[in-house]
Amino acid sequence: MHARPTASAARAVLAVLLCAWSAAFSQQQPLPSWNEGSAKSRIVAFVKAVTDRSSKDYAPPPERVAVFDNDGTLWSEQPLYFQLVFMIEQVKIAAPKHPEWKDNPVYKALAANDHKALGELGHKPVLELLAVANSGMTVEAYDKTIREWLATARHPKFRRPYTDLVYKPMQELLAYLRINGFKTYIVSGGSIEFMRPWTQRAYGIPPEQVIGTISDTQFELQEGKPVLVREPKFAFIDDGPGKPVGIYRAIGRRPIAAFGNSDGDLQMLQFTEGGSGRRLMLIVRHDDAAREFAYDRQSHVGRLDKALDEARAKKWVVVSMKSDWKRIFAFE
Amino acid sequence: MHARPTASAARAVLAVLLCAWSAAFSQQQPLPSWNEGSAKSRIVAFVKAVTDRSSKDYAPPPERVAVFDNDGTLWSEQPLYFQLVFMIEQVKIAAPKHPEWKDNPVYKALAANDHKALGELGHKPVLELLAVANSGMTVEAYDKTIREWLATARHPKFRRPYTDLVYKPMQELLAYLRINGFKTYIVSGGSIEFMRPWTQRAYGIPPEQVIGTISDTQFELQEGKPVLVREPKFAFIDDGPGKPVGIYRAIGRRPIAAFGNSDGDLQMLQFTEGGSGRRLMLIVRHDDAAREFAYDRQSHVGRLDKALDEARAKKWVVVSMKSDWKRIFAFE
Repeated sequence: MHARPTASAARAVLAVLLCAWSAAFSQQQPLPSWNEGSAKSRIVAFVKAVTDRSSKDYAPPPERVAVFDNDGTLWSEQPLYFQLVFMIEQVKIAAPKHPEWKDNPVYKALAANDHKALGELGHKPVLELLAVANSGMTVEAYDKTIREWLATARHPKFRRPYTDLVYKPMQELLAYLRINGFKTYIVSGGSIEFMRPWTQRAYGIPPEQVIGTISDTQFELQEGKPVLVREPKFAFIDDGPGKPVGIYRAIGRRPIAAFGNSDGDLQMLQFTEGGSGRRLMLIVRHDDAAREFAYDRQSHVGRLDKALDEARAKKWVVVSMKSDWKRIFAFE
Repeated sequence: MHARPTASAARAVLAVLLCAWSAAFSQQQPLPSWNEGSAKSRIVAFVKAVTDRSSKDYAPPPERVAVFDNDGTLWSEQPLYFQLVFMIEQVKIAAPKHPEWKDNPVYKALAANDHKALGELGHKPVLELLAVANSGMTVEAYDKTIREWLATARHPKFRRPYTDLVYKPMQELLAYLRINGFKTYIVSGGSIEFMRPWTQRAYGIPPEQVIGTISDTQFELQEGKPVLVREPKFAFIDDGPGKPVGIYRAIGRRPIAAFGNSDGDLQMLQFTEGGSGRRLMLIVRHDDAAREFAYDRQSHVGRLDKALDEARAKKWVVVSMKSDWKRIFAFE
């Protein structure tokens, strides 16, 4: 806006350098943890098409929006969504302050880790109880609780911090998209506050690009200090048909690439496909019981059923973790 | 992540160039439409302090979040919020489809432009009726309606498109902050969909950095086409104590600089001030009846009363449009 000729010239030089550097960078072998095959080649072909100015599929950088589900797409989600493990522990810690829970069937099922009973009770009452457990605290205090839990909790199968269970091939994919001018977002059924403390380090995704389920908060002055206090209810559930709504609210653009792994991602994939111009829709399929987990249509966590049928019918990319990925975790 | 030595070297060269260029750029006289004085010098001193690595007030770039109210802070808001002018016209257009409105006091007051009656009715019933008027259409159709209105509507005093009424000094301030590594956001009581079509051009702020009031939308497949349809209610009102909540939901960081003009911005300013480290809180005061409008404590639009008292008590920057700004609009 205030550029004088010298600044304009510098900017032009810079733009040329940036392009050259970006091209050099992206011409290295991308996606080293991916085996050669249809999934990898379709990703690369898509990225080449939308970044090539001479292509009919060219998308200018502001339109290069890529959305990623988190649980089961960027990190593991079995045997139970990691946030749910955390929240159940929080419910147990909060129980002494809530004598009214004693005969509550939801509390009893949570305390007993009774997945069958929880499944029969349905999502809504479970979410309602979970929302109460951490209400009343400031968002800073809740953030601290989450960080402390993540630092000490260990996954029951891998005996490692949960944040070690991010998928190396997906980290590479995120970096590959960004180096090609994409803005990468998480769009998760998980809560924003549970993801934001670690997504920058794990995925290179800053807090402001994390879209998720939102707890209601209230602005208050506590002894003159302005704080946000957690209310005992959810303001927005970012799952299933909520995902396109969350994307619209936070981004205001229709993504051109979407990555998911379960039926909860179906509408996000449909919404992405529904725009004009070239699109990439991809599903990560958990078929590697040896290195991670194998599950799909029958799973109570991350069920992949309708979205798998639709992926096949519409020829979306379906990634086999077993055959498409050289390795799954960085620690392997 | 995949950088080989050549790419690393290129990146280092680039970083140096970028810094040099950025420094050259920012050392031009910043804020040319601002008169020399306390407001300008305090802004510049703040920016220098938080960007100087040797300063105790240094803030790393990810923390350089600046939030701007829109109505009355970045563009005019008199004699009536421009979005309200648009929405009232939409209500009138929708009226034939809503015979039940005939005896509705809100509708009658809106149709008669009876500001006194509207003031007595209060915000809530007015918002409820406005929300109904444009429900049922897809977000794309609504976007088109807004763009068409903005292209043809004229401000009653200035006889120009509403989007001409953006403040040149604030455009310069936004650019000055960005060149100094800030990420600039709008945090407005206005609706996201009313702002996003034009904020990139007017302010250099992309849709994903526009935080505002949110109408509820519903994902649907209409003849197989995935769309978002507007529901007849608001999901979130981004005003007053809602502003810190909106910031937390969308950004997940506490801003270090906040810019407003009315009591609706008070909590956003308080929330910004409440963090640790150096902060800038600024209020634009409308005291130039000749070039724009003069109003504060008594105004029904953009009332500045409590926030002015607090600004004085806490020594926030209070900008006099009359004496601090050389010009207000680019067209002058």
